[in-house]
Amino acid sequence: MTEKIARVLEPESIAVIGASNTEGKRGYDTVRDLEHGEFEGDVYPVNPKYDEQILGLDVYPSVTDVPADLDLAFIVTPASTIPPILEECGDADVPGAVVLASGFSEADEADLEREVVETAVDNDVYVLGPNSQGFANGADLNLMGGYHVPDGTVAHVTQSGDVALMLSSEAAATGSNGFSFNVDIGNEANLQFHQYLPMLDAHEGTDAIALYAEGMADGRQFLRTARDIVPETPVVLLKGGRTDAGKQSAASHTGSIAGNADVVEAAYRQAGVVSVDSTEHVVPVATTLANLSPPDGNRVAVLSDSGGHATLAADAIARTDELELADLSSETETRLQEAVPVAPNVANPVDIVGIQGDSGDLSIYHTTAEILVEDPNVDLLLVAGTLGGYDEYGPELGDNNEVDVARRVARLDEEYDTPLVVQSMYGKQGSAALDAVEEEGVPALGSVDTAVECLASLAAYGRHLRTADEKTDFTFDRGGDQRHEVVAAAREAGRTQLSEWESKRLLESHDLPVVPTELAASPDEAAAAADSFDDRVAMKVASPEIVHKTDVGGVALDVDPVDARATYEELVETAASHRPDAEIPGVLVSPMLDDGVELIVGVVDDEETGPAIMVGLGGIFVEALEDVSFRSLPVTEFEAREMLDDLAASDVLDGMRGRPAVDRDAVVDLLCGVSDLVAATPGIDELDLNPVVATESGVSAVDASVTLADEP
Amino acid sequence: MTEKIARVLEPESIAVIGASNTEGKRGYDTVRDLEHGEFEGDVYPVNPKYDEQILGLDVYPSVTDVPADLDLAFIVTPASTIPPILEECGDADVPGAVVLASGFSEADEADLEREVVETAVDNDVYVLGPNSQGFANGADLNLMGGYHVPDGTVAHVTQSGDVALMLSSEAAATGSNGFSFNVDIGNEANLQFHQYLPMLDAHEGTDAIALYAEGMADGRQFLRTARDIVPETPVVLLKGGRTDAGKQSAASHTGSIAGNADVVEAAYRQAGVVSVDSTEHVVPVATTLANLSPPDGNRVAVLSDSGGHATLAADAIARTDELELADLSSETETRLQEAVPVAPNVANPVDIVGIQGDSGDLSIYHTTAEILVEDPNVDLLLVAGTLGGYDEYGPELGDNNEVDVARRVARLDEEYDTPLVVQSMYGKQGSAALDAVEEEGVPALGSVDTAVECLASLAAYGRHLRTADEKTDFTFDRGGDQRHEVVAAAREAGRTQLSEWESKRLLESHDLPVVPTELAASPDEAAAAADSFDDRVAMKVASPEIVHKTDVGGVALDVDPVDARATYEELVETAASHRPDAEIPGVLVSPMLDDGVELIVGVVDDEETGPAIMVGLGGIFVEALEDVSFRSLPVTEFEAREMLDDLAASDVLDGMRGRPAVDRDAVVDLLCGVSDLVAATPGIDELDLNPVVATESGVSAVDASVTLADEP
Repeated sequence: MTEKIARVLEPESIAVIGASNTEGKRGYDTVRDLEHGEFEGDVYPVNPKYDEQILGLDVYPSVTDVPADLDLAFIVTPASTIPPILEECGDADVPGAVVLASGFSEADEADLEREVVETAVDNDVYVLGPNSQGFANGADLNLMGGYHVPDGTVAHVTQSGDVALMLSSEAAATGSNGFSFNVDIGNEANLQFHQYLPMLDAHEGTDAIALYAEGMADGRQFLRTARDIVPETPVVLLKGGRTDAGKQSAASHTGSIAGNADVVEAAYRQAGVVSVDSTEHVVPVATTLANLSPPDGNRVAVLSDSGGHATLAADAIARTDELELADLSSETETRLQEAVPVAPNVANPVDIVGIQGDSGDLSIYHTTAEILVEDPNVDLLLVAGTLGGYDEYGPELGDNNEVDVARRVARLDEEYDTPLVVQSMYGKQGSAALDAVEEEGVPALGSVDTAVECLASLAAYGRHLRTADEKTDFTFDRGGDQRHEVVAAAREAGRTQLSEWESKRLLESHDLPVVPTELAASPDEAAAAADSFDDRVAMKVASPEIVHKTDVGGVALDVDPVDARATYEELVETAASHRPDAEIPGVLVSPMLDDGVELIVGVVDDEETGPAIMVGLGGIFVEALEDVSFRSLPVTEFEAREMLDDLAASDVLDGMRGRPAVDRDAVVDLLCGVSDLVAATPGIDELDLNPVVATESGVSAVDASVTLADEP
Repeated sequence: MTEKIARVLEPESIAVIGASNTEGKRGYDTVRDLEHGEFEGDVYPVNPKYDEQILGLDVYPSVTDVPADLDLAFIVTPASTIPPILEECGDADVPGAVVLASGFSEADEADLEREVVETAVDNDVYVLGPNSQGFANGADLNLMGGYHVPDGTVAHVTQSGDVALMLSSEAAATGSNGFSFNVDIGNEANLQFHQYLPMLDAHEGTDAIALYAEGMADGRQFLRTARDIVPETPVVLLKGGRTDAGKQSAASHTGSIAGNADVVEAAYRQAGVVSVDSTEHVVPVATTLANLSPPDGNRVAVLSDSGGHATLAADAIARTDELELADLSSETETRLQEAVPVAPNVANPVDIVGIQGDSGDLSIYHTTAEILVEDPNVDLLLVAGTLGGYDEYGPELGDNNEVDVARRVARLDEEYDTPLVVQSMYGKQGSAALDAVEEEGVPALGSVDTAVECLASLAAYGRHLRTADEKTDFTFDRGGDQRHEVVAAAREAGRTQLSEWESKRLLESHDLPVVPTELAASPDEAAAAADSFDDRVAMKVASPEIVHKTDVGGVALDVDPVDARATYEELVETAASHRPDAEIPGVLVSPMLDDGVELIVGVVDDEETGPAIMVGLGGIFVEALEDVSFRSLPVTEFEAREMLDDLAASDVLDGMRGRPAVDRDAVVDLLCGVSDLVAATPGIDELDLNPVVATESGVSAVDASVTLADEP
C-alpha cells in the first residue's frame, strides 16, 4: 500500500480526464502546466468528446485506451461522472485518482460519495478527494495551481485547499521552508489521513509531516499509525474547529464537560502528535522538528545583544507550559563575565550588551553561545536580537564576518547536540547571515513568539519520545464476554441508563472502590441499613430515571440513623412530586465519608478518537473551572499519573494548609481500573463517578452513573 | 510643557554635541545624515576640539556659541561629560537634549544619573535618556539610525531601542503602517513615559500611541494621564518582564499571590490602556485603534470564501475573552442565501464557497459584506480568506475589478459605522487590492490570529470607553488623619504587623463586616465568650507574631462551648511549643459561621502602579488555581462588580448545584469599604482578609491581617 500511494503521489505518467482545448478551463490549464512546466513525466489527455490533439498531445477517448502504464488519473469532470470513470481507471490498472469535483457529502450528496468510495474499493483505485484542490510534490509536480511549492522536507496534508495555498504562497514569498508534498485530501472519502503517514514516513525527502484537519474520518486508526511513525517522522497538527464543540458548561456530567476538542487534543498529544494553534506556526514548527534533534529536557538559555529581546524571550518562555529558563551554572556565569567584560548580564536571559560598540567583533556571539551550550543545565539555546542584521542593516562595523559567525553559531547545534533557534529582528527581511544559519539546518525566525513556540514544540516532542514506552498503544477494543448481569438486565428492560445501584454493582464486580451502599426498598430497610453502618448516613432516591438526584430534592446528607425512616419517606415523596413519571424502587443508604478531596472521574466516547477517560477536581469547581484532564483509553499507570499532574489544581491533591496529601496511587488505580472495566464491558457509552472522594488512605466512588450505547 | 516637548521632538534646529570628522563615529554619521538626509532644518556641529568645518558646516566650541535658537541638543559624548554640557544647554535656552551615552543607573552609576536629572531640572532642559538610541519622527528626522521610519499615525515610545528598530524595520519592509514618532526613552531619568502622552495626544499626525515598557518610573502618574487621553488617543502597551515577578504560589498572603505583573496589567487596563502580548501585534493593533472607531459591542461576523479560514477565524475568536461570534438574524441568513445561491454556509462564520467558480464576479464580496454589516446583531466584521489575491495570484477570472470590490468592502466601515478588518492569505505578499483596503483606513493583515487580535483590542477599547465614567479616576492618595488607635499602638510598640484582633478592630471602625470576635486572655474568659455566642465556636491563638496560625496548631474549629476551657489550654500550649519566641496574649473566640463561599480579599502596594485590591475564591483553591482579580485603588462599585465577574469561578458566586447565590452586593460593599479604609489609614502596606465568608444574606471577614509600611 505504501508503495502504491508513493507511486500516485510521485507519478511518472498522468492521465488528465476531462482534458480540454479551452483556455481557462482546469482541463486545459492542467495539461498546459504539466506539459510546459517542470513535470518530466508523460501526460495523456483523456476526453471522449475530442478527436483532435490538445497542445500537440493525442487525446484518448478513455483511460483504458492510453497506451502506457499510468500512475495517476487526474479527474476534472463533474460529480456524476466519477463512478464510471473510476471503473475505467480500475480496468486500466491505474493505482490512484485525484477527484476535484465537488457536489458530494459536503453538498448533502452522501449517496453519490458512497458510490464513489465503493467503486474505488471494488476497482482497487485509491481516490484522493473528492472535493480536493489537488496536490503538489517537491520534485516537479504541481497539480494544485497557485504558487509552485518550493521543495522542502516537510510534507503538508490538509483538509483545506486554501490553507494549503496560504502556506505554500507564504513559503514561496519568504523563499524558505517549502514542502516535499502539499496534499489537499478533500472529503477524505477513500484515502484517509492515516493512510498517508506510512508513505510519508518512508519517503526519503520528508522529515516531518504537517497536518491541517478539522475532523478525521478514522481518528482511532490515525492515532495508532501516528504513534508508530512519530519517533522517526514527527507530526505537527493544526486542528480547525477546535472551539465549535458547543460545551455546555452548566451541566454536570462528563459528556457535557468534555468539549470534543479537549478529548481529541489529548488523544493526539498522547500519540506524540505536536499541536499548534496558528497557521503562523505550522511551517516553522514542522521545519524545526524536521531539522533538529529533540533535547533531553526543557531548560532554555537565551542569548541576546538586546535587552528588550532578552526580556521578551524570557516572557514568551514563561508563557509556555513546556519550557523553563535554564539556571546557569556559576562556572558558566564566570566564563561569560570573562568573555564579555563590558557589563553583560550573565544571568539567563544573557544580554551581551556593547556588541555594537567600537570593536565590531561579532565572534563574541559564537564564544558566548558555545559557553552556554557547554553548560549541563542548558537543554536548548535561543539566540535572539540583532544577529543577522549587522552586515546589511546595522552600523558600519568594518569586516565583521557576520555570515561566518552566524554559520559557526548554527553549527553548535550539531557539535554539542543542543538544539538551537535563531531569532533575528531582521528575520522577516532576511540576510546572508540568516541564510547561512538556515543552510546549517537551524531555523532563523523573525518573531520571538514563533521562535519560542518552535523550541517548546521540540521539547514536547522530546518529552514524548522519552516517555512513549510508558504510554498506551491505542489497541483498545471494547467488547469481550464479561457482560455483567446489570447490563443484561438493563438491556432486557430496554434501558440504556443504569441506576446508581446498578452502576455501583458493575464497578464492584471489577473490584473498583465504591462507598458501601444498600438499596432500601422501605423505611424499615432504610433504618436497618443505617444501623448496620453504625454512623451518620447519606440517603438518595434510587431510580434509573432520575440522574440528577439533588435537583429533585432526592438527597439527604449527614442523616442520624434514628431519622432514617422519616428521611426515607420524605425523599421518596419529594422526588415523586418533582418527577411523578419516575419509578422509584427505593432509597440508597451509605455511610458518610470522612472529609477528603472530591474528584470527578468519567468516560466519554468521542466520535473522532474513541473512548476517553477524564479526571478533575469535583464538586462545584469542576463545573465552574473545568479543570480536567483527558486521555484516550486504555490508560497506563504512567498516563493516569500524568493526568493528575496535568490538573491546574494538582497541588490540592498533595495537601495544602495542613491537610494530608491524598493517596495518589489509589486514584491512579481507580483510573486504570475504569479503563479495564470499559474495555471488558461492551457498549458503555458514558460513565460518571461524581464525586469520588480521595483521602490519605484511599479513594471511593460516592456516586456512579453508567449509560449504555443504544446498540451493544 | 506640551508645546516645549513638541518643539524638542519636531525640531527645526539641532546642535550635534560631540560632532566629529571621523566617518563611522556617531558624531559624524549624525551630522551627515541630518545634512544629506530629508531633514530640512538647521544643523550645528559642536565640539571644542575642532576648529575646522565638518561636512562644510562651521563647528562651534560650545552650544552657547551657536548663533541661532536651538530646539534640540543631540549629545553623543560620554557619560561623565553630560552634566556640564546640560548646564551649557540651559545657558543657551535649548529646551531639550537627547543623551545617548550609557554608563548611568543601568551600569550601577545611579549617582551620575541623579546628577544629570538635577542638572536638567535646574537648567530647565528636558532630557531624553540617558542611554537612549535617539528618536525619529514621521516628518523628516531620523536620529535613531537604522531604517528610516515611514510616516504613519502611530507614535511609538519605547524602553528598548532594539524593539524600536525591530518595529521600524518591519514597517519599512512591509511598506505600510509607519510611525509619527519612534522614541527610545532610554533610562527614563528625566522625561518619563507619562510626559510624552499629552504632547502626542495633541499632535495632529498622531492617532494612537504604542508603548514598549518594562517598568515605568512613575506608573501612578502614567495611569492618571493615560486615563485622560485614551478617549481621544488610544494607547497600546506591550509590557516586557511580565513574567519576572517571581510569584511564590505556595505562600498564602495576598502579596505573594499577586505577581506584580498581574497587578500592573490590571491597573493599565483600568486606565483604558490596551495590552498586547507580542511584538507581532503592536503595530497592527495600534493602527487598528488609530483608524477605526470602536464598536458598540463584541459580536463579530466572519465572511470568507475559504472554509478553512472561516473555521480558523471562528477558533481564534473563541480563544479571545473579548469577542463572540455574532448570532445572525434569520433575515440576514435569508438575504445571504439569495445573494449566494451556490450552497453557501449562511450561518456565522459565513462561507461564500463557489466564488472562484466560472462567473468571476467578485462583487459578491461587497454584497454579502453589506448584508452582514446591516444586521443589528453584528458589531464587527472580519473578511477572511482570498480577497486581495484574485488579480495577482488567483486563477484567471477575467476582469473582476478586485481593486474596486476591495475598496468598496473597506468603505463599509465608514458607511455603516461597523469596524472591519480584512485578512488575506496573500496579506504578507501584498497586492493592489489590499493597498486599496489600507488606503480606506482598514487594516489588511496576513495572519488570522493578528486580525482577530486587532478586533478584540478594538472591542476592548470600545468597552472601556462605554464604562470609563464608572471607573476610578486614580486620584487615590493615602493619608488623612483617621489614624486608628490600633495603628498608633503598633507603631508605638515598634511593630508593623497588626494582630488579628487589632486588624479586626480597624475593620470594624470602618463598619466593615467582621465575624464577632472576643479576645480571651484566660480559659475562663474563653468559656465565657463561647457561652455568650450560644453556638459552636472557632478558637485561634492571638499573637501578632504568629500570622499563619494553622501551621503552629493554633486553630480549633467547631468547638463545643463546654470544651472551650480545655481547648484554650491546648491551643496555647501547642502554639508555644512551635513558637517559643512568640508572645501569646490569649485566644480569639468566634462563632462558627454557616456554610458559605470562602473568598479572599487583599490589598498590596505595587512599586510601579501603587496600591491595588484583590479578590478571589478563598481556601485551598486560591492557592492552587490563583483565580483572582485586581484593580488599582480606589475602586468604584462598578469596578468591584467587574472584579467578581472577572473570576474564572464567578459562577460559584451565583449558586451551583442547588446552593443559593451569595450576596454579591455585600461583597461589592466590602471591596469598596476596604478601598475607603486604605485611603483613610496612612501607611497600610498590605491587608489580608482570608477567608471572607459570603452567604446569601451577607459577607463576613473571618480572619484579618494588616501590615504597616516601615514608615507611616
